[in-house]
Amino acid sequence: MTDLNPAAVDHPADALQTAIDRTGSIACVGLDPRPALLPPGLIRAALERHGDTAEAVAAAFLTFNIALIDAIAGQCAAVKPQLACYEAYGTPGWIALERTIAHARAKGIPVIADGKRNDIGSTAEHYAQAAFGGAPGLGGATMPGLGADWLTVNGYLGSDGVTPFLKESGNGVFVLVKTSNPGSGELQDQSLGEGSVSEAMARLVRTWGAGNLGTCGLSAVGAVVGATWPDQARRLRELMPETIFLVPGYGAQGGGAADALAGRRADGRGVVVNSSRGIIAAWQGAKTEDWPGAARAALEAMNRDLAGVR
Amino acid sequence: MTDLNPAAVDHPADALQTAIDRTGSIACVGLDPRPALLPPGLIRAALERHGDTAEAVAAAFLTFNIALIDAIAGQCAAVKPQLACYEAYGTPGWIALERTIAHARAKGIPVIADGKRNDIGSTAEHYAQAAFGGAPGLGGATMPGLGADWLTVNGYLGSDGVTPFLKESGNGVFVLVKTSNPGSGELQDQSLGEGSVSEAMARLVRTWGAGNLGTCGLSAVGAVVGATWPDQARRLRELMPETIFLVPGYGAQGGGAADALAGRRADGRGVVVNSSRGIIAAWQGAKTEDWPGAARAALEAMNRDLAGVR
Repeated sequence: MTDLNPAAVDHPADALQTAIDRTGSIACVGLDPRPALLPPGLIRAALERHGDTAEAVAAAFLTFNIALIDAIAGQCAAVKPQLACYEAYGTPGWIALERTIAHARAKGIPVIADGKRNDIGSTAEHYAQAAFGGAPGLGGATMPGLGADWLTVNGYLGSDGVTPFLKESGNGVFVLVKTSNPGSGELQDQSLGEGSVSEAMARLVRTWGAGNLGTCGLSAVGAVVGATWPDQARRLRELMPETIFLVPGYGAQGGGAADALAGRRADGRGVVVNSSRGIIAAWQGAKTEDWPGAARAALEAMNRDLAGVR
Repeated sequence: MTDLNPAAVDHPADALQTAIDRTGSIACVGLDPRPALLPPGLIRAALERHGDTAEAVAAAFLTFNIALIDAIAGQCAAVKPQLACYEAYGTPGWIALERTIAHARAKGIPVIADGKRNDIGSTAEHYAQAAFGGAPGLGGATMPGLGADWLTVNGYLGSDGVTPFLKESGNGVFVLVKTSNPGSGELQDQSLGEGSVSEAMARLVRTWGAGNLGTCGLSAVGAVVGATWPDQARRLRELMPETIFLVPGYGAQGGGAADALAGRRADGRGVVVNSSRGIIAAWQGAKTEDWPGAARAALEAMNRDLAGVR
């Protein structure tokens, strides 16, 4: 039965597909904590213990996340911590991020580090080491890194900026192709000779992933394709048949289930739908401080919503 | 005389121009430490004290950087720590990064955090808070962040992905326009109706910076334009007359002084040229363990090389 544990599966697409098959969910929960999303009791406790410091914020984030992860384990395909939320609090924030990822992995949940990193050559390798581990010590040791399974990356720099992230097998990247935000079209929708900028990026994504398919038929090079542009998602699927789409923009940003799933393959595979605030801040709408219970209920509703279209 | 201290000047372009005027240098020194670039004596000392750990790497990086900064202060326009190099070593790496930046600022050197960050809305704001400070605590405090003056950003997401970095005055961004790497053309050179993808990005950069000029006439929204593409740099200058170009690719990547300065304005302003390995690892070519002395000599040679064209 160990082959059902995503952590035991070698290829990142196989591990993610295993998690989807096991949980029946294609939902990804965005772990994007911010002070404004924390329940008052949690804030009070952290202030009492740590004062008005970065340590207090980081401690509250970690308590918030651990309880969330425990509540959603078994009901989601992945979690996606947003690196910016933690980096803003410096070293204490980074510790909270490390421990959040470690807890998710201990629960068998694939982790997508949302860092939108990008650089070339050895610098890109250092970002990969930060996310996945493997940085060299001074005497032959290697460092563990954050221990994520996937990292979001920005492909504007071309192949030199993406292939270094794929040097070690077992990890994957999601490349930004068509983002969910209103201004995404300023560059991504501009028309090249053969289609748009985002379509050119999609062709590159397919190329980068072609030699790196899992046994499930999906590649270690995924694509970020916003739920807010369903027509483009369908077109992008034609250009990237073996690519897992990480779909932001469901819920809070206005994309419905049908929009979020517009880019799925004919076999129903190849899409993971993210929701952040809609899950982790569900306690605010539910008028309760039971944030884990509210998150679990919101996730179950999201799973039903998506299942209605799948 | 305090107005000659870059830290006392409000607009980031004015602070950078002040540093250039004061030092007579347009060189930016890339603080990109890696174990392979550290002198053997430094490695031995760090291993003895900390074992083969991330703490050892971070301690060696910090010692290396502090001595470098002391050696180059007054001879360069800016320093540019590469965030990836530090992130690869987790929390100890982040501490070394914080202290490196603090030391450069204490020496009056403008700091460009090279993180190539990108995201939208409040998430982009969190990246800005990480680089520049201002993240909210739980009780009304604000966090100091890394304390950088500038941050490199990737503009693929459009205006929603760049303007949040400019909410606080006093800080600036360098947007990737035409990067120095061989594969940069895969996307950036593709032809749109009106010029290339990089030219479309250049037009966006000008728009983003238009309302944000310093008294020196240069904007808080700079552009990364590689030294390896001088013809494109001249064209991009026409599209971005008020933009400071941060120019990587000088030296190690093959761009000479004339190439690096191809995009300067008619008044000679608007270009900062980066060198990383050529300065910080100069001790290797000089066959000495005196890395600060070798770096200083290499920087002086770079300044002479650039002055020959300026």
